[in-house]
Amino acid sequence: MSESNNSPLSVGIDFGGTTVKIGVCKGADVVELAEPVVTSDHEGPDALISAMADTVADLRKKHPSIAAVGSGVPGLVDFDDGFIHELTNVPGWVNVPFRDLLAKKTGLPAIVDNDANCVAYAEWRYGAGKGMKNIIALTLGTGVGGGLVLNGEMYRGTQFGAGEVGQMSMDYKGKAGHYGNLGALEAYMGNKQLCEHAILRYAAAGVAKSEEECTPKMIAEAAQAGDNIARQIWGDAGDWLGTVLSSIVWLLNPDGIIIGGGVSKAGDLLFEPLGNKMKSMLSPVLWDKLEIIPAHFGNEAGIIGSAAQALDATS
Amino acid sequence: MSESNNSPLSVGIDFGGTTVKIGVCKGADVVELAEPVVTSDHEGPDALISAMADTVADLRKKHPSIAAVGSGVPGLVDFDDGFIHELTNVPGWVNVPFRDLLAKKTGLPAIVDNDANCVAYAEWRYGAGKGMKNIIALTLGTGVGGGLVLNGEMYRGTQFGAGEVGQMSMDYKGKAGHYGNLGALEAYMGNKQLCEHAILRYAAAGVAKSEEECTPKMIAEAAQAGDNIARQIWGDAGDWLGTVLSSIVWLLNPDGIIIGGGVSKAGDLLFEPLGNKMKSMLSPVLWDKLEIIPAHFGNEAGIIGSAAQALDATS
Repeated sequence: MSESNNSPLSVGIDFGGTTVKIGVCKGADVVELAEPVVTSDHEGPDALISAMADTVADLRKKHPSIAAVGSGVPGLVDFDDGFIHELTNVPGWVNVPFRDLLAKKTGLPAIVDNDANCVAYAEWRYGAGKGMKNIIALTLGTGVGGGLVLNGEMYRGTQFGAGEVGQMSMDYKGKAGHYGNLGALEAYMGNKQLCEHAILRYAAAGVAKSEEECTPKMIAEAAQAGDNIARQIWGDAGDWLGTVLSSIVWLLNPDGIIIGGGVSKAGDLLFEPLGNKMKSMLSPVLWDKLEIIPAHFGNEAGIIGSAAQALDATS
Repeated sequence: MSESNNSPLSVGIDFGGTTVKIGVCKGADVVELAEPVVTSDHEGPDALISAMADTVADLRKKHPSIAAVGSGVPGLVDFDDGFIHELTNVPGWVNVPFRDLLAKKTGLPAIVDNDANCVAYAEWRYGAGKGMKNIIALTLGTGVGGGLVLNGEMYRGTQFGAGEVGQMSMDYKGKAGHYGNLGALEAYMGNKQLCEHAILRYAAAGVAKSEEECTPKMIAEAAQAGDNIARQIWGDAGDWLGTVLSSIVWLLNPDGIIIGGGVSKAGDLLFEPLGNKMKSMLSPVLWDKLEIIPAHFGNEAGIIGSAAQALDATS
């Protein structure tokens, strides 16, 4: 195989609370996706990391040129020493030297990073932010996650906690977020919270709607079909998100903001009011050249970004 | 003189709309402060830069080891090529290659940067942020200015417009800032706006106060003397500032936030409610090791920071 001679390959592990997705990457491409590991099938870090390593060993048989392994983790990671203090949503993951265990069990150079950072890295290295110097990459899903590339490198912050866009405030007297933080964007823009807002918006217009009828996907379809209330809901979302993103632009003056995740699939229904809001909030110097772009990668961003970080760190 | 043999000296120029302050610096010390140049005495860039250069020439006679000159500018500067597109508050300063003219007229290597960046650099290099990796330095005065040092270097943003903390929003339905940006911190925390808020706070309690009685200094004195309304005004300021600074911490997870400028002289009257607000808005990981510190330098920060940047860039 030519691949084993001259193509650098690496493995990306997207470690989630439900499943662990593992793929072999060559640049922006996932050349092979392994059978996912079910997180709850393996009790504790040792068993789960062994299961990851078994999958990596199988992949290396088919792809002997695999040179490194990276993992995106659902929580705070000390990137420099690869240590996890605690993963709130994965039982038993307290004080785990994850990078060293992963390297030992796979026999490969390893890196581990926060999952949102891996997504940002994928978009910057190979995706919508390629060639840019300063980007923010957002994922709008259950929560609102973010990662930053500044001055052409990942920016992780002093305790590796940077990028928590969903916790930023858009209203100093607003709804409390997860940490009691008033006006947290996530308390408005999270999947569930957007749904609750939609139910209220419809109720105010005398229309009773259930939760099932108010998923982001349903609201997008309703808006596309001409439902004015649904359009207003996306307008509200654009105002909220636009307020926080404008603050980020005033602070960081980036080249681009990259937006992915389920909620972003509403497309122009969200991006149009978002852009209008941001234009109204920014100076021309900051706005005119700013790019607000849908994410290039979908569910595979975490795999691609962790694999890319691993390879770039070791080559 | 021993100085000329082994002590690197540089000149810092704090270019303001009213006066241009020029000093010879040795590290954190201003070893000689020249007679200020009155900005409006010199029509247009050429005349003003010549006046600056004359002062620099005089200083070099006394301090022959001066090795570089730097200037902090009240507006947007392209740091890489030292070009000023426009200074809103200084007539005639449109499309000026300031750095090159300054270098030519002084015969010294030169740098020019935004004034808030120079203040941040001074605090990071020699002041309250010394030894830190990631800081935000704020100046609370007529407006709210800011500068960032990230990953151990000045962060200026793609169009060199980063650090505009005063334009960040604390309320998506709030008061409009200078750019029409709703909820802009500066629309609440600027000197004048804080004064207007104080007049309203007193009026609501049936107390008529004039503008002269509501300067930040007067409100601080009143609060210190036990005036409850004055204390509440500082509480409001702490809430507003704390909301925006918490958002910055969620985004950037810095080591420290350094706060200077006239309004910050209220000291604990401001810093105490500010800290309480931020603690209520942040996770322990981000809050526990965060330092919120009064600025080390006062009015000379711009001179010291521009002089230090000039020397560091050329050595």
